[in-house]
Amino acid sequence: MTGDTGLEEQVLERIERARRRKARVREEHVTLAHGAGGKATHTLIEGVFLESFRNPVLEPLEDGAVIDEMAFTTDSFVVTPLFFPGGDIGDLAVNGTVNDLAMCGARPRYLSAGFILEEGFPIAHLRRITASMAAAAEAAGVHIVTGDTKVVERGKADGCYVVTSGVGTLERPTRLSAAAARPGDAVIVSGPIGEHGITIMLARGELDIQADLTSDTAPLNELAARLLDACDDGDVRCLRDATRGGVATVLNEIAEASKAAIVVNEDIIPVRPDVRGACELLGIDPLYVACEGRMVAIVSQASAEAALTALHSHPLGREAAIVGRVNDDPPGLVLLKTAFGGTRIVDLLVGDPLPRIC
Amino acid sequence: MTGDTGLEEQVLERIERARRRKARVREEHVTLAHGAGGKATHTLIEGVFLESFRNPVLEPLEDGAVIDEMAFTTDSFVVTPLFFPGGDIGDLAVNGTVNDLAMCGARPRYLSAGFILEEGFPIAHLRRITASMAAAAEAAGVHIVTGDTKVVERGKADGCYVVTSGVGTLERPTRLSAAAARPGDAVIVSGPIGEHGITIMLARGELDIQADLTSDTAPLNELAARLLDACDDGDVRCLRDATRGGVATVLNEIAEASKAAIVVNEDIIPVRPDVRGACELLGIDPLYVACEGRMVAIVSQASAEAALTALHSHPLGREAAIVGRVNDDPPGLVLLKTAFGGTRIVDLLVGDPLPRIC
Repeated sequence: MTGDTGLEEQVLERIERARRRKARVREEHVTLAHGAGGKATHTLIEGVFLESFRNPVLEPLEDGAVIDEMAFTTDSFVVTPLFFPGGDIGDLAVNGTVNDLAMCGARPRYLSAGFILEEGFPIAHLRRITASMAAAAEAAGVHIVTGDTKVVERGKADGCYVVTSGVGTLERPTRLSAAAARPGDAVIVSGPIGEHGITIMLARGELDIQADLTSDTAPLNELAARLLDACDDGDVRCLRDATRGGVATVLNEIAEASKAAIVVNEDIIPVRPDVRGACELLGIDPLYVACEGRMVAIVSQASAEAALTALHSHPLGREAAIVGRVNDDPPGLVLLKTAFGGTRIVDLLVGDPLPRIC
Repeated sequence: MTGDTGLEEQVLERIERARRRKARVREEHVTLAHGAGGKATHTLIEGVFLESFRNPVLEPLEDGAVIDEMAFTTDSFVVTPLFFPGGDIGDLAVNGTVNDLAMCGARPRYLSAGFILEEGFPIAHLRRITASMAAAAEAAGVHIVTGDTKVVERGKADGCYVVTSGVGTLERPTRLSAAAARPGDAVIVSGPIGEHGITIMLARGELDIQADLTSDTAPLNELAARLLDACDDGDVRCLRDATRGGVATVLNEIAEASKAAIVVNEDIIPVRPDVRGACELLGIDPLYVACEGRMVAIVSQASAEAALTALHSHPLGREAAIVGRVNDDPPGLVLLKTAFGGTRIVDLLVGDPLPRIC
């Protein structure tokens, strides 16, 4: 809490704003920011969807709904381009839904697949997408058991949108929740961040940046299971995959739900040099860039080392690191200790610097 | 099987074609017909999706997947216009998913809701849609427990697409299946057909037809439960809501899966005069027009009268009628006894006379 003049003021103002914010959608029309995962998305979800659908299962707004001994989740994919280094919309969709279930602590079991296709979309592309979905499902140990197809006229969609929903079984006593972080807990990131988002931006070919990057899209269910196995019941408080809005957004959601502060160290957060370089050129903080195969884990101090060892033992967790701690004050805020010794607030994203990355 | 010269020839040719058809997608690009629910949709599902995702749960291609004591289903909605007499894309989506679960014999419990929104879409419209989803969920006794929102740039979608998935519990021993129809069974339609499809066509304002019609969109779970309660275990063989492709498509799916013939009487199939009139002007057979609150039930002869009485006792089943029988020959075909004393084959739809009605 030291190092920056005016930080305390910022904190107070931020808390006041959060209180005032109270989910009122002021825009009259949908903006791209409503889909970015940041502030506008949160407001839309709370001000429109939660207002309409409110019920105790929906209200925690976790990655999936936990009902009886089951987890249930859904995700729409509108990524552009459809094919990119390291994956395509198909495995992205399967992994995304597998990960949402895994983040609930569930074993992903069954997926549905919905396709909204534009008239004229090449069947060969559709086959590539379904083949990659099948391979991703196989890799994650899930089955695609039901589906739906709609076709809209030329110009009324953008090639192919994929919507996957998933059902998983809760086979452990631990109930994970963004509201469960407690002061003293360790904040773990499972690997280098931002590769997916930057890969997509570069794949669009609109930027004159050369980088040797591939999407990190991957199923996190095994990694999550390994982590849960290594820790005592209840010691893993929360798991979140850092997709739209990146690690910064996930940390904000946890800080807010847990009414705790989260303090992370910029120096320790793993970021590949190519990602860092592209982010600098784009003027984006890698903390806000989407990953599709990385998760944030909040783990009790007692289990933190065991958790880290477990993550390191899996190929997807080799570069996992404890990047920060949960504090009790100021509640609801994420603070970043910068490489230069300062401290700044990491707020929710405003606007959408990286549209349609998933 | 009498009354038409050449019928036998047609039957043989149709069987031969069906054998040859064997799910090969010949087109190089997606066409609107791939979304119409008819021949092209079936070929796409079998030739692309089933080929990629094949597993024993998916393979029956029912309205939903039955796994353990649970049913799981998904549906995408791209109806245009979004608001129409009798409903909107919101209650249509909720009812559609509720009905898919009910058609599996399940009690619908939990729904997910995904939104793909076009930049610039009016928030007021989104609120109308979510309000109508909430009301439909309430009416059907289900909760919307998880969701997702994506926004695409202006011109990259068509206002709002809604994707709902659903989970239901199987609380009865009866397992319904399109493959379970047996010779002698009664074919029941729960009410007048084609209202939804014609209402949507007229709501587009492109046709100079005056008709006082509203969509039949409604949740069928109570009606289905009442039917199942009234019949002995196993006597209800199959339930299908007659959406895209209408009653004709559902009957074809059942005939094919059961390797039985289905013979229906044109005279007895309930069709409101306004629907019949509009269909005549449009040159469409009402048998192919989508309903969103009507189902086809295949019920054993022994339980047929009890089934009909049960349906008549519910507001949504007042006009239910036994419209035909299951025969053993010719397997896989649907035959219509016409009002003029002839018999003709009711084939799967080719092309899409009514695009984007759901």
